[in-house]
Amino acid sequence: MQSMPAMRVYLDNGATTRVHDEVAQTVLRYMIEEFGNASSLHKFGQDASKALESARATIAKSIKALPEEIVFTSGGTESDNLAIKGAAYANKGGHIITTKIEHHAVLHTCQELEKEGYKVTYLGADKEGFVDIHELEKSITPKTFLVSIMHANNELGTIEPVEEIGNICKKHNVHFHTDAVQALTKIPIDVRKMNLDMLSASAHKIHGPKGVGFLYLRKGVKIHRMMDGGSQEYKMRAGTENVAGAVGFAKAVEIASEKDIEKMRKTRDRLIAGLLQIPNTQLNGAREKRLCNNVNISFHFVEGEALLLSLNDKGIAVSTGSACSSKSLTPSHVLVAIGLRPEIAHGSIRFTLSKYTTEDEIDYTIKTVREVVERLRMYSPLKIGVRA
Amino acid sequence: MQSMPAMRVYLDNGATTRVHDEVAQTVLRYMIEEFGNASSLHKFGQDASKALESARATIAKSIKALPEEIVFTSGGTESDNLAIKGAAYANKGGHIITTKIEHHAVLHTCQELEKEGYKVTYLGADKEGFVDIHELEKSITPKTFLVSIMHANNELGTIEPVEEIGNICKKHNVHFHTDAVQALTKIPIDVRKMNLDMLSASAHKIHGPKGVGFLYLRKGVKIHRMMDGGSQEYKMRAGTENVAGAVGFAKAVEIASEKDIEKMRKTRDRLIAGLLQIPNTQLNGAREKRLCNNVNISFHFVEGEALLLSLNDKGIAVSTGSACSSKSLTPSHVLVAIGLRPEIAHGSIRFTLSKYTTEDEIDYTIKTVREVVERLRMYSPLKIGVRA
Repeated sequence: MQSMPAMRVYLDNGATTRVHDEVAQTVLRYMIEEFGNASSLHKFGQDASKALESARATIAKSIKALPEEIVFTSGGTESDNLAIKGAAYANKGGHIITTKIEHHAVLHTCQELEKEGYKVTYLGADKEGFVDIHELEKSITPKTFLVSIMHANNELGTIEPVEEIGNICKKHNVHFHTDAVQALTKIPIDVRKMNLDMLSASAHKIHGPKGVGFLYLRKGVKIHRMMDGGSQEYKMRAGTENVAGAVGFAKAVEIASEKDIEKMRKTRDRLIAGLLQIPNTQLNGAREKRLCNNVNISFHFVEGEALLLSLNDKGIAVSTGSACSSKSLTPSHVLVAIGLRPEIAHGSIRFTLSKYTTEDEIDYTIKTVREVVERLRMYSPLKIGVRA
Repeated sequence: MQSMPAMRVYLDNGATTRVHDEVAQTVLRYMIEEFGNASSLHKFGQDASKALESARATIAKSIKALPEEIVFTSGGTESDNLAIKGAAYANKGGHIITTKIEHHAVLHTCQELEKEGYKVTYLGADKEGFVDIHELEKSITPKTFLVSIMHANNELGTIEPVEEIGNICKKHNVHFHTDAVQALTKIPIDVRKMNLDMLSASAHKIHGPKGVGFLYLRKGVKIHRMMDGGSQEYKMRAGTENVAGAVGFAKAVEIASEKDIEKMRKTRDRLIAGLLQIPNTQLNGAREKRLCNNVNISFHFVEGEALLLSLNDKGIAVSTGSACSSKSLTPSHVLVAIGLRPEIAHGSIRFTLSKYTTEDEIDYTIKTVREVVERLRMYSPLKIGVRA
């Protein structure tokens, strides 16, 4: 029998987060009190509509967009699909530029479009996960209608030079979409300054509920809608509006603060420092231009999955890659893209913190990871020295 | 100043419903306690995954399907889009048969496919809203790959002969999809007996949360997925699973009972009887094969919107059509399709009850509607006699 772990430490906030109490209470209220359909003309409907529009305004303001530029969706994946397929079908053929280190929601959408006859260029990234903006500029052709490059990488935490990319896209008159699912509330976003035409985000990564996201769609940018039906969301996304979800999302955006970022950065650095003291480890991703809550470490001579499961037994939740591909045994496409050897990629663990993460939790994690890594290395066929 | 109404009576449950307290508490719990990402390998993730699979099993059982035949979506509109576009893109060209009285999520999806080169037949309906199954059978051609006919009409409440339609489709080897958004938990559904290949449903119509629905997809039926990304939902729908939503949906399905149907039927009949005592009124839709919670009445010589707003002032929430098209001024496409003259269609109101609707509320509604209709008729340019 497995004994109860001494602590429960959730360090997989890149996969999803605990909903903030205040957000959860807001969602609750909009489920049982203000439950109207925002498209209905009576008081229940109009109250819901006002709440929805207020949520839209809050979210718009947080990224310096206009309320009518925010299209609520069911999450980041839908936003990515809507942005990329929407731009593609509005353009009818042509060329897309993206990167090898995107989330599968972007990558698989582009691959699907390739099957439909679109051309796609997948840019590489350097060993820290930065996209080469000169390579980007060289890849733009007269047929290019869209560049989709993520704001911050979900596995490495590396923050891409979004503003520079935006300038290049503007100069060449190409639409620019960014998947900001990991970035929202963790990096200040200004869609005008960054020359963004589209931006995807999701509530459940920032202590909001699952099942709600948005696509920022710059005024004047024409895309083809994905879901037909009612006239909701400026006719860009049919379906009864998820009012409770949208209001909860806005509340989560409102609650997020600069102080949280500072706190996460501090705990992140404590974790990085502690883990790198374990011999034969390396930090993946950028050191400075890095998400405040991301730590990605390769533990040489260790299988990531074995480490994950052992840590789980000790109450610590981490991931070996993005949650969406955690059930697959192939090494992370991101780690492969930045040039990690397969055996190093396989021994990599992502720790993603939240504002709730305490120093005690970090210290327990460092101590536990050290013990588990030592034990796994002792029994590992990938023993130190054997490989050398 | 408008005085406070004597009562608040919500009779727009066809548009959306108040979330059941127990459902809301379940959703709350999955937001703040069991908040893991169902695709994560650690305990938080596995707990979420177990909850999701249990919800899937509950929902599957309620319509006599297998768990692996349930694909969670963001709602009825997404399910309709996924079913119809999914079947179309898997078939690459061909012919669809649907009806003129479908919800816009089906109708506009079919119209979109027409633009893409698909052929679509829109069957008519008789004056009670029944689709003619002989006309259906005659419309099937060798190119027909899909029939999409709703289970119960959202405006009229008329219940279509789904089992007969299923038999015809089976005989001709054509896939059959039904939008059961209004029917779920109000009509017993047996997907095998009804020969259903696909069925759309939504939680927020049955006292579940907004933002979650499902598509029943019979094993072996091949459709093209709409959202690319992770491998969630048997690779049929990418995106982090809305665990709280799915679990809440299942709870709402569990709570719904035969007793609720009986109760609604009784209050519905009381409302119909009371409203038809107002002179110059008519019931739209079927009298017997009718949703237990739907009342649709035309008040001659009255503008529906004026009636809706006056009732709203008295605390009563009703609709003039489906909520999704309530902001449009054109008469309901459903009422036009069953042959109502435009001025009669314009004077029609839908009252949709729930299990929470009380006899007192019904009596207050009847009394208030009578008063408001009399007053409106007094000042109406559509005065009685003037038209005759």
